[in-house]
Parts: sequence; structure tokens; C-alpha cells
Amino acid sequence: MFPQDVIMKKRDGLALTQAEIIYFIQGVVQGYFQDYQSTALLMAILLNGMTDEETSWITEAMMKSGEVMNLQHIPKPKVDKHSTGGVGDKVSLILAPLAAACGLCVPMISGRGLGHTGGTLDKLQSIPGFCTDLSQDEFKQQLEKIGVSMIGQTSNIAPADKKLYALRDVTGTVESIPLICASIMSKKLAEGIDGLVLDVKFGQGAFMKSFEKAKDLAQHMVAIGKHTHCPTVAFLTDMNQPLGKAVGNSLEMIESFECLKNKGPEDLMHITIELTAQMVVLGKLASDMDQARTLVLQRLQSGAALAKMREIIQAQRGNPDVLDNYKLLPMSHHHQDFTSPVAGYVHEVHALPIGVAAMILGAGRQSIKDTIAPGVGICHLVKIGDQVKANDPLCRIHYDDEHKKIEAWDLLKNAFVIRPEPCSKPKIIQEILS
Amino acid sequence: MFPQDVIMKKRDGLALTQAEIIYFIQGVVQGYFQDYQSTALLMAILLNGMTDEETSWITEAMMKSGEVMNLQHIPKPKVDKHSTGGVGDKVSLILAPLAAACGLCVPMISGRGLGHTGGTLDKLQSIPGFCTDLSQDEFKQQLEKIGVSMIGQTSNIAPADKKLYALRDVTGTVESIPLICASIMSKKLAEGIDGLVLDVKFGQGAFMKSFEKAKDLAQHMVAIGKHTHCPTVAFLTDMNQPLGKAVGNSLEMIESFECLKNKGPEDLMHITIELTAQMVVLGKLASDMDQARTLVLQRLQSGAALAKMREIIQAQRGNPDVLDNYKLLPMSHHHQDFTSPVAGYVHEVHALPIGVAAMILGAGRQSIKDTIAPGVGICHLVKIGDQVKANDPLCRIHYDDEHKKIEAWDLLKNAFVIRPEPCSKPKIIQEILS
Repeated sequence: MFPQDVIMKKRDGLALTQAEIIYFIQGVVQGYFQDYQSTALLMAILLNGMTDEETSWITEAMMKSGEVMNLQHIPKPKVDKHSTGGVGDKVSLILAPLAAACGLCVPMISGRGLGHTGGTLDKLQSIPGFCTDLSQDEFKQQLEKIGVSMIGQTSNIAPADKKLYALRDVTGTVESIPLICASIMSKKLAEGIDGLVLDVKFGQGAFMKSFEKAKDLAQHMVAIGKHTHCPTVAFLTDMNQPLGKAVGNSLEMIESFECLKNKGPEDLMHITIELTAQMVVLGKLASDMDQARTLVLQRLQSGAALAKMREIIQAQRGNPDVLDNYKLLPMSHHHQDFTSPVAGYVHEVHALPIGVAAMILGAGRQSIKDTIAPGVGICHLVKIGDQVKANDPLCRIHYDDEHKKIEAWDLLKNAFVIRPEPCSKPKIIQEILS
Repeated sequence: MFPQDVIMKKRDGLALTQAEIIYFIQGVVQGYFQDYQSTALLMAILLNGMTDEETSWITEAMMKSGEVMNLQHIPKPKVDKHSTGGVGDKVSLILAPLAAACGLCVPMISGRGLGHTGGTLDKLQSIPGFCTDLSQDEFKQQLEKIGVSMIGQTSNIAPADKKLYALRDVTGTVESIPLICASIMSKKLAEGIDGLVLDVKFGQGAFMKSFEKAKDLAQHMVAIGKHTHCPTVAFLTDMNQPLGKAVGNSLEMIESFECLKNKGPEDLMHITIELTAQMVVLGKLASDMDQARTLVLQRLQSGAALAKMREIIQAQRGNPDVLDNYKLLPMSHHHQDFTSPVAGYVHEVHALPIGVAAMILGAGRQSIKDTIAPGVGICHLVKIGDQVKANDPLCRIHYDDEHKKIEAWDLLKNAFVIRPEPCSKPKIIQEILS
């Protein structure tokens, strides 16, 4: 077999065998499949598609291209969550300690932010001293001890995905459902989990703009979960307006701490509780969603989830005092309110310009090499359905650089739609697939 | 503009602009279009196609990626021929001196053989001393002096094609009509010619197996010629049986010399005379094909074409005595006749196994790095329509290595079809497009 044989088969619209897919993925890691051969095959896959079987095989091959964690010695159900990313999506920061407080083991490996969406790792690193690059051994020890650990992608997890993703990013081959599925699922399955909850977002602030495409992606990932014996449930959630009221690293940490104190914004509390309850059900710590929800709420109200967050911060060498004193988090030098020119009801809060504005302020990265300014961002965001008076703030901008603020300000001008008539709050969870 | 923007546009099935195509081709040469980006785009072009306009633009951009020769100071019509390649196709070796003897300037840049098809350069190099890598200046001086020169691809002719072809070869992206057209035409147009005759072969010994695909390719190339103001005529010719009676480098040189002495096999003489006459018409040295044919035959019968071949060999530092003494050409150590088990008429002579057998003997290359054995090959081939008696030879194998001979012999067992009933000779030139 030569690389070009595999390429030509997919080029001609045929399904690849499991052996051919393994040959490809191992070749990517071992180097006998050259980069220029990989990208030709990736384009052929994007244009000619993959069957569910092929997608499962490529996921499995990518997972096995690196270490697959064995957490069987930990006597708890191992369940994780993955989100396809959105603006203000800090659910993981609340859900991980909350799920662990319910008795689950949560081996959470997260990514960094890119473009208009933030990343869990960047947010955690706004906590002074917090370390996200634990060794595999430290990660496992922490899971054993406190049931949860939150780290970044390590080089020994799914290295084939790492290499292929870097190539896809610069060759127009990102937008392929089978390749997106395989990339997400290979990394999650390598965590050695028993169950997975997916938050697949749709809307202008999400990677998938349309509900239909998001649903297609979700269905494929649920199918892979089934095929690889990892029960997987996918939530399809609305990402047209930002989640919660804060966008930016320190700002989102504060909002997450508030949620752990059971004082967070309604939409964010709701989605977090539902996703965590689903994890509890998948981990068989409750027989149904009602029972799971009761457990989750009890752990929030009792302070157990907040206490678990304190344990995480301590274990990962951060300063746990931030939980009581938010001023210990890095903050921007200036802030200014962005006000409404008119009175009325908020009909739309566009996630995309708000995400881009936060990125421009320094909360996110335009390119993978950019560094993050943890203190900047946007907070006190109004929500769809809110009533405002003229000159009421629609949000507050935290900034360090006047020029960047002006650029962000211009974007915010088109981010809010205020109309005289009342407007109901949108339904955030649109559908659940399992 | 970024490379991925161009890739995504073609991925989405849109036509590229001339500026985008120039950006791609210049990027290939200058290095800002990485190999892994080029191959993703090549696959998208293969799967989503190109319009005639795009194909002309990419041809022009590839031609302009290197030097475009200026031969305007030579007061003769500049006309060349290109063949898509076949088994026993030595037409260029006869046609180039013949066309020059008719008064044309023939700036012939040829390729090497690969797989079951031979290359003009390899055949010429069986002449002791013959040099095919002249400098551009030497090439031009020779054209001025004797009106014909036969050299190999130089690095300054269409370097973008050279780079892209090497990538296509290992990424399953060869079989794209627009890319094949652009590759052939960019190199030929860079010769600075006023007209071009194409010999587009179809059949089992050709690159294009079916007549329809060959015709499609031919039509596209004629269209590019029109678009780039280089009058182009394409012959569609049958490549199901080998051309002439010899396959192998020295053996084909000898057959070519015999043709120049007006003693060649009927099919080879016919196609060579017709292609040369078409060149004469394109060069306006004759008003129609009848008049051109008369001139061509006169130049053959007078010995002018043979004299021109002597001039070429002398100019390119070869030993011209080979024309009179074929023993000066390298020959194999052994030969053996392959005989017919039955009496009857030859119904089929399969070009593909014969081409592969010759390659195995050492006449061709399995991979680009292989070296050629100039003396081996197959000769005295019977032709479709010939009558044979039992034990009559169907061909003669020239070989150096007994093991290779056995392998070639096995292939020849399925190369001939002999049946009791008579069979007419096939029509070699099926259609002419202009």
C-alpha cells in the first residue's frame, strides 16, 4: 500500500477500509504519510465524505495514535463534557467542580481560545499561580484524590489529531463533519471516560451557524460514542447571544465563582445544571434527570461545589483566596459603560461582534501566537428580554488600551437591538440527542 | 489574500479569478504556497474542475513561472509536436528532422520515459556521445543554424509545472483534465512556438484508455491553444497496439533511422508523415494537407530528412556514423524469438504488456530513479492483420538478464491474439481536431 493508493480511493468516492485508515493515521504520526499527501486526502474526505463506520475508525485510529488513559483504578464513574465553543461559554469552570462534588470523576482536558471564542485554559490561568500543564501522573493522582483535574492538551494525547488539525487550519479543510467529529471525539475518548456529554452550539457566536448543521454534527458524534462503547449525549444549545453576562478571562472566572455560590445569571445556571445532571445520569449516580437535578442543586446550595473548586485551585497551585477576594484576579486599568441610546426591550444581543470586541481588547487570540490580557473584556451584559431605559448601560468594557477600546466600541454599536415592544427570553437548550 | 482563501473557494466549487490563479502559481515558485496547501488545492481542482478560462489562466501562469523563449529572430515558422505517450512511439525522432528538412524551426523539448512508455530523450541518448542537456544559448544557436534541436526539460522552463507535477504524482492528483492540459501546454508554449500539433493517444497502451477521455483532453488543449494565440491541431490516434515494430531505446533509434531512409513500417511512416504535414500547414509552408504531404514525401525520398538527422547528431556531439552502422549503438547480449503456437491472423497485439515487458527488461523505468539499459527491448513485432504460420516469430526479445527475460516472456504470453480468420489493419488516426 502507498499513500497515493488511499488518496485515490477516497478521491474516487469509495469508502476506505479500517486497515487503510489505520495506515493513514499511523503514517501521519510516523512520517511515511507526507504532509502534502495528508492534505490531499483531507480535501478528498471533505469533498467526498465518510461513512459512519469510516468516521468511527478514524476516530479510534486517532485516539490510539497516542496514550489512552486508564483510570479503572478510580472507583467512580468517569464522565466528561465537551463544548464546541461559544462567546462567554464558561460552563466547564462551574460544571467540573459541581460534577465532582456529585461524586463523578471528571478528567477534563481543555483547549485554548482562538478567534472570537475563549478557552477554558486561558480563563483558569487568570487565577494567580494556577497550573494547567500537569504531568500525566500528577493529573491521575489529582483525579484519584479529589475526583477532578483541569489541564491542557498534552503531546501524548491523540498526536495525529494535533498534526492534522494544524494542517486543516491552513488548507481549508476544517469544515468537514467527519473530521470535526474525529478530532473532538478522539481526544475525549483518550481520557478513558465511561460517558460524555456534548454541548453542540449553533448560532452566530458558534462554529456551526445553523441548527441543522449543528444537529448533523451532534448526531455523528453520538453515533461515534455508541460505536466506541462510550455512551454520549448531545445538547443542542443556542449561541446567538453570549452565555451569561461576562466575556473575558478574569471576568468569566468571577462569574463562574458566583455561579458556584448559586448566584449566577439565569441562562448560565440553567445550562450548567442541566449538563451536569446529564453527566450524573450517564455516571449512573441518579436514575433519571429529576433525581440528578436534585442532587446537583443540593451540591450547589450546600457549598460543596464551591469547596471542590477550592480544592482544584489548591491542587493546581493557584491561590484559593481568589474565591473570597476577586481583587486578587488581574483586572484592566480602565472601564467604561456602553449605554443604550433609547428605551425599550432587548431583542438581540449579537454574540459574534461581542466575541470579536473582547478578542480585540486582548481577551482572545487572533492568531495562535498572540498572548492574552487576562483583565480585559466585557461584563454586565444585558440579556434578550431585559427592559432598559435610555442611557442605561448595555454592558461595561474593561480595557487597557484606548485605541483597542475605540475599535471594540465600534463593534458594539451593532451588537444590540432595542425595540419598544417586550420580548421573551430565548430557549437555550433546543434539543437533546442520545 | 491567503492560500486557504483560494483553496476554500475552489473547495466550494467556485471559479477562481485570474489574479487568484497567478497568486497560486507564483506562490508555488516563490514558496508562500506551501506544498501541503498546493496539494489540497490540486485535489479540489481535480474534484470540482476548472472552466476553460481558468484552465487557460493556469496554463499561462505556469508558462510565465519561468523563461518563455523568444525565437523571433529566426526567420522560419516555429512549430512543435507533442505526444501524450505510448508504447513504441518514436515519431518525434523521425518528425523533428523531417519537419526541419521541410523548412520549419522545431524547438523540441522532450521528457524521459516512465512506466510502460518510453521517452524521446532516453532513445536519443542511446546514440554514443549524444548530448540532450544543452544550455539555452546552445539550444538557440543550434535552432538558428540547422532549424532543429532536441533537448530535455530545463529548470527555467515552467518551474511551477515541474514542482506541481512532482506533487501530483504522489498525491493521486494526476488524473485531472485541466491540470494535464496546463502541464503539457505551459511547457510547449514556453518554447515560443507559432503552432503546435498534438498526438493525443487513446487505448490500452496510452495514458487515456478511452477515446472519449482522450477527445475531451484534446478539445481542452486545442481551446487553450486558441486562447493563447498558438494555433493547435490535435490528432486522436490509436494506441492499442505498439507503434511500429520495435520497443526499446537502441531498437527504436534503428527503426527511426530506417524511417528516415523511407523504409519504416507502414503505420509509423503514415502517422509521422501526417503529423509532419500538419506542422507544415500550421507553419504556412503549404496551403493544404495535400501540398504539405507532397513536400514531406519529397524531403524523405531525397534524403534531406536523413541528412538533417546527421546534422542534429553532429551538433549535439553524437557519433553520426550510427546512421550507417547500427552496430555502433549499444545492443543487448542475448536475443530470443517469441513464436506463435498456432497459425492464423494477428487480431490483437496488446501494447500494455509489451510496454511493461520492455520496461522489465530494462528499456524503461519503474521509478524515476531507475537507470535505462539502452540495448534491451522487443523488436520484429508482428502487426494486427499479419498472417503467421505456427512457430513463426511474433517478436524478438533482446535481453541481458535471464530472470528478467523470463518475467517479460510471461507477459508476452497474453500479448498476442491469433485467430484463424483474416483481420484488417486498424485505422490509426481516428479524428483530427482544430
